Amino acid sequence: MGALHEGHLSLIHQARKHCSMVVVSIFVNPLQFGPAEDLSRYPRTVKIDQHRCRESGVNLLFWPSSEEFYPKDFQTSVKVNRLSQRWEGEARPTHFEGVTTVVTKLLCLVRPNRSYFGQKDYQQLLVIKQMVQDLNIDTKIVRCPTIRESDGLALSSRNRFLSESQRRKAVSLSAALKQGVQAIKQGARNVRIIQSSMQKILRKISGVKIEYLAVCDAKTLEPLTSVKGEVVLLGAIQIGKIRLIDNLLVKRPS
Amino acid sequence: MGALHEGHLSLIHQARKHCSMVVVSIFVNPLQFGPAEDLSRYPRTVKIDQHRCRESGVNLLFWPSSEEFYPKDFQTSVKVNRLSQRWEGEARPTHFEGVTTVVTKLLCLVRPNRSYFGQKDYQQLLVIKQMVQDLNIDTKIVRCPTIRESDGLALSSRNRFLSESQRRKAVSLSAALKQGVQAIKQGARNVRIIQSSMQKILRKISGVKIEYLAVCDAKTLEPLTSVKGEVVLLGAIQIGKIRLIDNLLVKRPS
Repeated sequence: MGALHEGHLSLIHQARKHCSMVVVSIFVNPLQFGPAEDLSRYPRTVKIDQHRCRESGVNLLFWPSSEEFYPKDFQTSVKVNRLSQRWEGEARPTHFEGVTTVVTKLLCLVRPNRSYFGQKDYQQLLVIKQMVQDLNIDTKIVRCPTIRESDGLALSSRNRFLSESQRRKAVSLSAALKQGVQAIKQGARNVRIIQSSMQKILRKISGVKIEYLAVCDAKTLEPLTSVKGEVVLLGAIQIGKIRLIDNLLVKRPS
Repeated sequence: MGALHEGHLSLIHQARKHCSMVVVSIFVNPLQFGPAEDLSRYPRTVKIDQHRCRESGVNLLFWPSSEEFYPKDFQTSVKVNRLSQRWEGEARPTHFEGVTTVVTKLLCLVRPNRSYFGQKDYQQLLVIKQMVQDLNIDTKIVRCPTIRESDGLALSSRNRFLSESQRRKAVSLSAALKQGVQAIKQGARNVRIIQSSMQKILRKISGVKIEYLAVCDAKTLEPLTSVKGEVVLLGAIQIGKIRLIDNLLVKRPS
């Protein structure tokens, strides 16, 4: 969706390592924004993005207009049913359908051998993996690690909307998730206890609204009551009008 | 879906004329049958089908099991919203979603340059064309003419279920559609008049239930009140428990 930051650039670097040709798409996809969401306010920095792509060795920048990508008679949608329901799917009911529809189009147009997605949007990554498997789209989905500021805040195009004081508060999300990981590594198994240790960190910060803080199976995203196998900690908060998400993966030590 | 007849074979012949390699899929797709429909009764004649494919010069017969095609965690669907709503979509609410999902999978697996579909299922043909365009699937959808018995009955795998007396009645559907075409060719423009001339033919036959007899725009499938541009006459009837569909295209003479 453009507004490229180091997180996006890390995908490009990864792709360049393994592929002879790298294609980047920049398209602020209207389908994945709800009616009350920030489509018009979403940051657009195309000139800078172009420059960054060129500098990073991108071979092709695909940058369609909304009108050519979705002509007037456009009427097809792709939906991943179970994995899209919870968490971001609940907070943003049409979001994943918009994502899977646009990604199917992009994959059919470009036919990449490998497609790079950031772990930052963990549920999106799983939804796309499922879609590619279900529809027999011939590409390998590669998961790339979340890139963070030095204090732990996950990079996001929306971070630029944070005021200085909001920015200081924003780090609490990754801090809370880290706290959850630490609890699990130290042997905590009861999810309610892990959750309340994460909540404690966020509740200390005024103006931070918790949307969800979940301990889930890393494959199905179903919430757990007791830590088992590979687990993902998912978090979403609101600071003012800005919505931030983050996640951490953790394997129960055996 | 197998139970190959001359209609299917004509698709193969067309494909062989223009393509160096011909792939046929045989898969009775459970997704496109409603709960009250004839999935278990749908004719399966795989040995004969295999033989016919070999005889017709098919290079590859793709014949998956339901379990490998839709594994347990399968959860993705493809939907064409507007074109799927009327006619067959109304009679069979989940039908087209099943069709577009399976066809997307088949096209992604096989990646054919050209894909051959019969005009017999006219709405399906349009729905698939729209889907391929919307999702940027790189294949050309080729429309092949409906193949008919000498008296006009469109070939269909379901025809084998007709008793002798039902078979005699079944021809009335194509006769009614032909009557509609003739009326238009002779200058009729008022759709209500054209429709009632078609209905008249079917109402004479006892045990034939009209589901719909429609005069529609050939591109959008919207019903017309007055004949304009290219028109498709769509018909669906029931004879006993057997559902038959047929259609004819007609251009308004200028």
